[in-house]
Amino acid sequence: MALIVQKFGGTSVKDRNRIFNVARIVANTRNAGNDVVVVVSAQGDTTDDLIAKAAEITSDPSHREMDMLLAAGEEISIALLAMALQEIGVSAVSLTGWQAGFVTDRSYSKARIKRLDTERVESELARNRVVVVAGFQGLNRSDDITTLGRGGSDTSAVALAAALHADRCQIYTDVEGVFTADPRKIPKATKLKEITFDEMLELASLGAQVLNNRSVELAKKYGVELEVLSSINPIPGTIVKEETKVSGLLITGVAKDDNVAVVSIKGVPDVPGMSFKVFSLLAQRNINVDIILQSSGTEGTKDLVFTVPLTDAESTVSVLEDHKSRFGDGEISVDKTCAKVSVVGAGMQSHPGVASTMFEALSGQNINIRMISTSEIKISVIIDKNDADRAVSAIHDAFIQ
Amino acid sequence: MALIVQKFGGTSVKDRNRIFNVARIVANTRNAGNDVVVVVSAQGDTTDDLIAKAAEITSDPSHREMDMLLAAGEEISIALLAMALQEIGVSAVSLTGWQAGFVTDRSYSKARIKRLDTERVESELARNRVVVVAGFQGLNRSDDITTLGRGGSDTSAVALAAALHADRCQIYTDVEGVFTADPRKIPKATKLKEITFDEMLELASLGAQVLNNRSVELAKKYGVELEVLSSINPIPGTIVKEETKVSGLLITGVAKDDNVAVVSIKGVPDVPGMSFKVFSLLAQRNINVDIILQSSGTEGTKDLVFTVPLTDAESTVSVLEDHKSRFGDGEISVDKTCAKVSVVGAGMQSHPGVASTMFEALSGQNINIRMISTSEIKISVIIDKNDADRAVSAIHDAFIQ
Repeated sequence: MALIVQKFGGTSVKDRNRIFNVARIVANTRNAGNDVVVVVSAQGDTTDDLIAKAAEITSDPSHREMDMLLAAGEEISIALLAMALQEIGVSAVSLTGWQAGFVTDRSYSKARIKRLDTERVESELARNRVVVVAGFQGLNRSDDITTLGRGGSDTSAVALAAALHADRCQIYTDVEGVFTADPRKIPKATKLKEITFDEMLELASLGAQVLNNRSVELAKKYGVELEVLSSINPIPGTIVKEETKVSGLLITGVAKDDNVAVVSIKGVPDVPGMSFKVFSLLAQRNINVDIILQSSGTEGTKDLVFTVPLTDAESTVSVLEDHKSRFGDGEISVDKTCAKVSVVGAGMQSHPGVASTMFEALSGQNINIRMISTSEIKISVIIDKNDADRAVSAIHDAFIQ
Repeated sequence: MALIVQKFGGTSVKDRNRIFNVARIVANTRNAGNDVVVVVSAQGDTTDDLIAKAAEITSDPSHREMDMLLAAGEEISIALLAMALQEIGVSAVSLTGWQAGFVTDRSYSKARIKRLDTERVESELARNRVVVVAGFQGLNRSDDITTLGRGGSDTSAVALAAALHADRCQIYTDVEGVFTADPRKIPKATKLKEITFDEMLELASLGAQVLNNRSVELAKKYGVELEVLSSINPIPGTIVKEETKVSGLLITGVAKDDNVAVVSIKGVPDVPGMSFKVFSLLAQRNINVDIILQSSGTEGTKDLVFTVPLTDAESTVSVLEDHKSRFGDGEISVDKTCAKVSVVGAGMQSHPGVASTMFEALSGQNINIRMISTSEIKISVIIDKNDADRAVSAIHDAFIQ
């Protein structure tokens, strides 16, 4: 008898039929002899509808009241799922975030879980009930409702799995698992049986939005084995864990990120502290700088080239222009015609040939590499946006047959 | 500086405009130098929408899960009203039923308030905030969410006013107060300045649904002065209190109740315990018997005639038929063509002529009286349904010029 935490997103419970579909998955897990804790998000468009209601009232709602408002969404879905489970003969009880013991810090709208008091959940499990928990929400020290921010239900599920020492945490989504590339673009992309936490983190940050990053970090920290699988097609998904068996695959995924702009600053004085001046300006505005390249310019100056999210390109340029006198008054330019293509794989740590295979594949397609960045388990290149799909396909072909 | 509790129903907060209308009423009360606690119901059709969602899942939802589901409705409205107050510059905070300290018994869907811990509300008031409280809901000893049943938000407001020793509890509705008769039917009906708790209780039970009965009982018990007034038209409403000044009005209201059926049982043996046998059968099935008339029949038998709600007529007859051998096997019949018309007034205790004035008015219209029932402050007659509106009009004319 195992304890399994199952998480279902908003699409999976969006209407009556999908709710009963989830209830049957839970019932099957229960009937196979497992204890089950289910974490659910708000139904389909509920969160967006509630945000729209608030927007009618004010353009700048208080975060506290926004959290109070949004928390109603999961209260609705947990009650409906508990009813559906009871309807098909499964003993079940729903619990809000605070009833399930989620204690968070004070940061409304993006609270972090500080503690989980699992007493109530455990006592309900002991009464042989399936426990249906509202994801995304908790309570702070002032007894005020907080929410965990985007993807928060994944985090709720992993935190519960960790605190309850669950045997597995299953994250049900609309995809069948983690693929070697976007299967809508690369027909040969294959589903991975297993992937490491680090690989998953790199893939998620590259735009392969299957799992929320914070939830993967939490799973890695507490050693919670995750499974990403489909709520529609009941086949095994992808296991995310600390170490995978050697799979024969050198890399686990090829990902593309279109949300990239390259910013250049020419003629930055080549003296200590200049880079800090530039990047602290951006950090203060929560602009995430990714790849940084520095090349020597003319007469004791250097050129700084770096990438930011395309969505932050305008504000990046405007803040830099406002303060350009601090770093040499050189020309500032932005290029929005690029994309980032990356290969990820824990296997590359012991196989030095990955980069050259990747570059060979790009060269074979006559694709020009504009920037390169590497980590222990990832190689990223910045190329022309128009070349990106062709690049992913060629790289995928080179590594995965 | 007074403390005022204001309660707004679902229609009063049904959309953006109505929410801002409520916010302005609250702001005016606040700006006049009062502390304000606001109790709100779920928006317009929210509760019905949530009930419909549950009905899609099961025809027999668990009461516990139903309460979890419905409580989401007020969480939405309190958050939106708090946002609207903040938007117009009023410091405000929303509290769910459990945050506001409502502790109830275990009866899901029709819980009764057992205790009110006002600490949180008082500390928010001390911070000069308007406190927006979710009506209709509380928490039981197991930390499970409960709801108070129909009209529960009125009860929440009165309970808060009692616990906080508020100076007044204002119940905002869609009518301008309590009238001497239904103003849609009787153009001459006038709004009462004041009415006693007992008169209000009699009127409410007669179908003049302005205030929930339980909330009036609670207000009477704790001496909370109520005011019923309109959220649309900002004029003084009707004050409900223990004793009213002599108003010159002998009676305070004439009311009609169409939900009445007359049931007759012939040939009941005239021995002790027979009435008990009949009425205990109905009590077990929660059928409310109102007026009872007993007349002697033939040869040591009697005839029993009584009224039940029209909506319970069929089940009344069927349960009586099933057990008729116990009380003489006599003929059982039901008459659904009747209505109850009543006059209510604390003043009639000291004015014996009320009944005769009423009967005279009916006789002047050639209306036949089929049953009569009296209490200290009420006289009811059962008449033909088709005569009812004419009867109300004639009685109103006789008492109120």
